[in-house]
Amino acid sequence: MIGNFTYCNPTKLYFGKNALESLNSELSKYGKKVLLVYGGGSIKRNGIYDKVIALLEANGKTVFEDAGVMPNPTIEKVKEGVARARAAKADLILAVGGGSVCDYAKAVSVSVNCDEDIWEKYFIRFEDVSCEIVPVGCVLTMVGTGSEMNGGSVITNHDEKLKIGHVFGENVFPKFAILNPEFTFTLPKYQMISGIYDIMSHILEQYFSGTDDNTSDYLSEGLLRSLIHSANIAVEDPLDYEARSNIMWTATWALNTLIAKGKTTDWMVHMLGQAVGAYTDATHGMTLSAVTMPYYRYILPYGTAKFARYAINVWGVEPANKTEEEIACEGLDRMEAWMKKLGLVMHLTDLGATREMLDGMVKSTLTKDGGYKVLDETDIRAVLSASF
Amino acid sequence: MIGNFTYCNPTKLYFGKNALESLNSELSKYGKKVLLVYGGGSIKRNGIYDKVIALLEANGKTVFEDAGVMPNPTIEKVKEGVARARAAKADLILAVGGGSVCDYAKAVSVSVNCDEDIWEKYFIRFEDVSCEIVPVGCVLTMVGTGSEMNGGSVITNHDEKLKIGHVFGENVFPKFAILNPEFTFTLPKYQMISGIYDIMSHILEQYFSGTDDNTSDYLSEGLLRSLIHSANIAVEDPLDYEARSNIMWTATWALNTLIAKGKTTDWMVHMLGQAVGAYTDATHGMTLSAVTMPYYRYILPYGTAKFARYAINVWGVEPANKTEEEIACEGLDRMEAWMKKLGLVMHLTDLGATREMLDGMVKSTLTKDGGYKVLDETDIRAVLSASF
Repeated sequence: MIGNFTYCNPTKLYFGKNALESLNSELSKYGKKVLLVYGGGSIKRNGIYDKVIALLEANGKTVFEDAGVMPNPTIEKVKEGVARARAAKADLILAVGGGSVCDYAKAVSVSVNCDEDIWEKYFIRFEDVSCEIVPVGCVLTMVGTGSEMNGGSVITNHDEKLKIGHVFGENVFPKFAILNPEFTFTLPKYQMISGIYDIMSHILEQYFSGTDDNTSDYLSEGLLRSLIHSANIAVEDPLDYEARSNIMWTATWALNTLIAKGKTTDWMVHMLGQAVGAYTDATHGMTLSAVTMPYYRYILPYGTAKFARYAINVWGVEPANKTEEEIACEGLDRMEAWMKKLGLVMHLTDLGATREMLDGMVKSTLTKDGGYKVLDETDIRAVLSASF
Repeated sequence: MIGNFTYCNPTKLYFGKNALESLNSELSKYGKKVLLVYGGGSIKRNGIYDKVIALLEANGKTVFEDAGVMPNPTIEKVKEGVARARAAKADLILAVGGGSVCDYAKAVSVSVNCDEDIWEKYFIRFEDVSCEIVPVGCVLTMVGTGSEMNGGSVITNHDEKLKIGHVFGENVFPKFAILNPEFTFTLPKYQMISGIYDIMSHILEQYFSGTDDNTSDYLSEGLLRSLIHSANIAVEDPLDYEARSNIMWTATWALNTLIAKGKTTDWMVHMLGQAVGAYTDATHGMTLSAVTMPYYRYILPYGTAKFARYAINVWGVEPANKTEEEIACEGLDRMEAWMKKLGLVMHLTDLGATREMLDGMVKSTLTKDGGYKVLDETDIRAVLSASF
């Protein structure tokens, strides 16, 4: 654990089949006016909406609705939500949905009392919050992003063809999150496996950085093994409560800052995926899976030792009589085979991307310097091209 | 992750070589009167005391001292500390030391404004706190107990020959903890390896419970592998910063409630060790190491599958062509060899225990029902006897 760092995560998690009941104790901490934020209406079909409304009413809340949050929430929609929150004088923003809804709720939370241009302030200049926030609570219905226990908020600007994430401080973290694995049962398989790969990528993008030997990497290996094990079960039987519960818990701990401690972290798969997302509006996790193999095979020579460790500790590659590079490649081969078996998208063409978009996607890809190689435009082009 | 549970851990951790500087920002959150709690004076010899005093004075604090907290803090000493905190009208209790000092600070914290008999209330009747607490902050100088990020407080009553722990709620958790691995460098080797084994036992006593397959167990395996790896380095070179930092971080996460989620947890090694501690006043971690092998070999038949998993995933036992029991036993054999190599105490006689104490220790051992076998008096006698 080299370097100085702080850890503080104040989000209270309620987990299990009865988790929603905890709304009773949580709601009493906030004022009467609640902005209920959700997406396209699936929570109305599966009954979660009715349960939440009943609890809000039983607790004497006045409910203001903000529906229609899209999978990749836009800055225009955020501005609409801000207007609704201001009109309602909301005391609490209750996000019911997946990571997009949580991300969106946080973006509204930090903007209600902000007079500046929020896209410029938070997503271009990456400034800290300088106004009072409106507290956010989450009822999670899709897992993957970890947004329920962190400060992350990814917003898309279609005019500028940009999809950018801001990581806010702990005051913006959801005050509470309700995690009932059963709420994820009705999710279509495509969304489920996309979420699983989002989790995996979160872990890997923190793991594949640094050459020191720290506890975070051992925790990451544990999370990866748990995720792979439970994903194999869930893809066969999506109603397996134990597998879905492990996936849900792993998602939260994959991106709540813990496994980044003492590490530089990489995040280039997300940078590449977000550029793809800005052009195709594809499901987030699938944009990551489509660029993963080209990216990791491209940077393997710069971090061979770590890829070899990954192969042995996560994929059970037998190291005897093999070079470090052979071990590392065998690990990626096993990962690729597993990804295909799970049903993940492996090519950008399957997400509606065309070669005409390539120049734009290359230019939209932000670069990071925490991983094993800092990519330049030529590198980015090579990686994205290899996914067509 | 079977069952319903909540997770909330509000302690803010400052980690690294510069961690002590964060006292500046933390102290500003509290009033002027600080009760400085510490042990036998080692912090005066190694300079930490002077650094802390300088920071307290620079922040305009009035310091009241409460020194002499013993390795197994007694209820008499807690009552003395309560009197000091009351006289000082302390706004903050700053614990500088190891787990004993932190445990003691928490016991004082919940007792300053309590009119009842605190031994009876907290350590016999295990009641919740019903009074205002005095906030606690920690500067850690010895690792092992995890007390810096949890609600645990273990107190000894010599009159009643009892050493009992109460796990308080999150309002009693330290508000902040300062973790500088260098502060542990001057610790004698005996104390260092005792702390390492305390950490290991914390992980194992949560791991060895339940038959479901949950993420907590994968995280535990990661922590165990990290701990074993770093312990092997630290025992050869106690000044290896990276190893000591991993051990410090692992200690915190071994007992801050995370890896217990979704599990019943066992804790019989601690129950046995605490009974030994009440009779011998021996170093806590060594009371655990001395009873571990007799206990795990005794319960192995009731949890063979988990012991086999442990052998494979933590100790790298090759499972091919072996029965589950053979695999499980080989894992414990490897663990025993490692414990001896590290220099841990393996027999109660090496802690000053005599056969005359056996009846008393058996009677003082509290039982728990979360592990693979609920022990009766005959079982407890058999386990303790096997350690002589």
